[in-house]
Amino acid sequence: MHAISRRVAAASVVVLTLVLSLAPLRAQAAPADRLIDGALKDSAAWHRLAEMVDTYGNRPVGSGSLESAIDWMVVQMKKDGLENVHTEPVMVPHWVRGHESATLLAPHRAPLHMLGLGRSVGTPAGGITAPVLVVSDFADLHAHAAQAKGKIVLFDHHFDPNEPPFDAYGEAVVYRFSAADSAAAYGAVAALVRSVTPHSLDTPHTGSMGYGDTTARAHHIPAAAITLEDADMLHRIQNRGQESRVTLAMEAHMLPDAKSRNVIAEVRGSALPDEVIVLGGHIDSWDVGQGAMDDGGGVVAAWEALRLIRQLGLKPKRTIRVVAWVNEEMGGRGADAYRDTHRAELPKTKFALESDNGAFTPRGIRLTGPDSLLPVVQQLIAPLARIGVTEAKMGDPEADVAPLAEAGVPALALDIDASRYFWYHHTDADMMSALDPHQVALCVATMGVVVLQAANR
Amino acid sequence: MHAISRRVAAASVVVLTLVLSLAPLRAQAAPADRLIDGALKDSAAWHRLAEMVDTYGNRPVGSGSLESAIDWMVVQMKKDGLENVHTEPVMVPHWVRGHESATLLAPHRAPLHMLGLGRSVGTPAGGITAPVLVVSDFADLHAHAAQAKGKIVLFDHHFDPNEPPFDAYGEAVVYRFSAADSAAAYGAVAALVRSVTPHSLDTPHTGSMGYGDTTARAHHIPAAAITLEDADMLHRIQNRGQESRVTLAMEAHMLPDAKSRNVIAEVRGSALPDEVIVLGGHIDSWDVGQGAMDDGGGVVAAWEALRLIRQLGLKPKRTIRVVAWVNEEMGGRGADAYRDTHRAELPKTKFALESDNGAFTPRGIRLTGPDSLLPVVQQLIAPLARIGVTEAKMGDPEADVAPLAEAGVPALALDIDASRYFWYHHTDADMMSALDPHQVALCVATMGVVVLQAANR
Repeated sequence: MHAISRRVAAASVVVLTLVLSLAPLRAQAAPADRLIDGALKDSAAWHRLAEMVDTYGNRPVGSGSLESAIDWMVVQMKKDGLENVHTEPVMVPHWVRGHESATLLAPHRAPLHMLGLGRSVGTPAGGITAPVLVVSDFADLHAHAAQAKGKIVLFDHHFDPNEPPFDAYGEAVVYRFSAADSAAAYGAVAALVRSVTPHSLDTPHTGSMGYGDTTARAHHIPAAAITLEDADMLHRIQNRGQESRVTLAMEAHMLPDAKSRNVIAEVRGSALPDEVIVLGGHIDSWDVGQGAMDDGGGVVAAWEALRLIRQLGLKPKRTIRVVAWVNEEMGGRGADAYRDTHRAELPKTKFALESDNGAFTPRGIRLTGPDSLLPVVQQLIAPLARIGVTEAKMGDPEADVAPLAEAGVPALALDIDASRYFWYHHTDADMMSALDPHQVALCVATMGVVVLQAANR
Repeated sequence: MHAISRRVAAASVVVLTLVLSLAPLRAQAAPADRLIDGALKDSAAWHRLAEMVDTYGNRPVGSGSLESAIDWMVVQMKKDGLENVHTEPVMVPHWVRGHESATLLAPHRAPLHMLGLGRSVGTPAGGITAPVLVVSDFADLHAHAAQAKGKIVLFDHHFDPNEPPFDAYGEAVVYRFSAADSAAAYGAVAALVRSVTPHSLDTPHTGSMGYGDTTARAHHIPAAAITLEDADMLHRIQNRGQESRVTLAMEAHMLPDAKSRNVIAEVRGSALPDEVIVLGGHIDSWDVGQGAMDDGGGVVAAWEALRLIRQLGLKPKRTIRVVAWVNEEMGGRGADAYRDTHRAELPKTKFALESDNGAFTPRGIRLTGPDSLLPVVQQLIAPLARIGVTEAKMGDPEADVAPLAEAGVPALALDIDASRYFWYHHTDADMMSALDPHQVALCVATMGVVVLQAANR
């Protein structure tokens, strides 16, 4: 045997020995590590999400597609071997978009890309045609109050790119929510808002709006979002002293409340089955795109985390329960219904974790609850350091666990790289292509480890 | 006087002296520097472009908006004091998009964002409904030839993000151009292509296609572009073994050729008026967005460069002529007409410069012509080093000067930062918001200096 060949052969023996000695080590790896390895070994979660959204599409409340997706989820959860799989009834608001359009008539004729806002009333048949008054914010509207009567008022409030995305969103979304009432108070005939996003390819963003309880029905005016590009254009036209005229036509209307459901599935606790760790996301979406990011990714990551815990035989001491809440986008009725249905159980609900910031790269966990729990949360995420999930901090709860947080349940949220979230948020671009399989897997690992650690404390 | 105050006063005298001594220096600055300073001192070009596109919108050949924009441009050029302002007739093809839609019927029902391709035939009223066959490229279609009959064939060819953008475009655009003929040869009933772009927010990109001369009219099938997101979705659905069915409905049709015009304006040469330096861009655009980037920015930058040369009294030795070519997007009839109308003059046309890569940050100049001219081009751009325009290299001509290049005129092109060009290209996002005022001004400075240097050699 040649000297070099001998050295190669010797090295091979060492490698083989290492592999053989690692095999039992792996089998004995900590449950959290097995869960992380299981989540990251393939793109199962991404593909399951893709199957759901490609087969059923987006899932607005009141739609057949939402109910079909729920039916499918229940069947799949049972096939997964999850326990106590069932749905719980929720009556949901039923807003229908119908056909809608906005058309610039002057100074030139062009379609404006738009999306009506959720809960908005429609326009009369044939639409509303009026000159546009562009204002930058509420103060600017007040300063131009005398010009608003009979106009379509556009709130051209900009998303601040220098703030953290969710802070900028919080500041901008008040215009989306209350543009209609604010403009109607000055005699406007319709309201438009600049889409709430820092980045656009002529992309309109929908979302919910509301009419105040004190606003008479006769003063409900229609509201829609237009794109950054068209808002910029209308503002330039006004600044130049030209008049712009727009026709807004919307068939939007409310129907009677519809029946829908929260979806529940569990792995029962081996030692303390009455104590519950909740994780989930919301199954409903807006009626645009596929609702893949918001919140298909969150709800499927939670589900896949529980499936892996079951499949890997990790046998948590406490019960781990997935909840797919319904109606996050336009009312939170599923969140309220869950709290009401499970009220007796809340004192034994140790944590409630939701993912609703997109299934992008997770960075840490936010806690809503007593500060004294923060060191515990730090312990829950300790095994996740190897995948970069290291931050435990106080913060606001996600919408579906907010009623639980108010009822005293410690609420947890996935803190996620939000740099691209508002590119896709409530748009036709909320499609599978926005999500990366590895990042979705990281979310599965993070949710799984947090609830498993919490269940086994 | 306090010591510090004295020092401040002394410093003020120095500053004042510097300012006073700089003033005459500035007046004596080289013409190229004055041109650069003039272009960069405000956002005049960006605002002029905005006025054009906000007032007239996009400018497809055959449209009233194109002719109105041309009329406005002629009036403005005369107001600018440019010489020999006139138009030259061009008969242009007249394709009309009409209403169009694509609807996914199965596995779920959803609109597909689409844009019919220029020159495509329409569908019968009610559209064409068929299953979709997704192929990655021509070879993949050939490999699945037996499955194409009666199908809507989607070419899901990806834009290569690792190549220079215009190279990736060149490779991908062959599918846009010949998808219809290729699919029809295998019995397909319609063709779809993945939009030619590296970045999308569910953004369809139109562009020209063609039917081969040997393709019988009966085999002309309609062709449209869908978004990256929808192409990804249809490919996933096929890979999963599900069938997707789509209805494609397009009213697209050709009308008889229409009358349009190239626009010409000059500053006549003081010493050699019969020798001509040409610069320009194309005034037509696709029928989406505002045509602000493609090529409003190019044609207005050229025009503004000449306006500045005239306004600053720079009196070039040779004649500098702006040309706003018509019909670059769907046939190049304006480019051919200019060559034919000015054929006798071509031997005295020293250079022809076009900007048609978006009015983003310019980096240099590409030459199509004898290699021996490259050192001359390097001299032309020498004053532009202070704004980062330093590269002179050989390359392909832009479309409107290609006929001149073939006739022996040295053709120049603005080499521009192309990183975002294909985000907006041929889409509704080709709006003013895509362009930065300073970058447009840099293009004005670059075009102005190049033609002024060429005129004064």
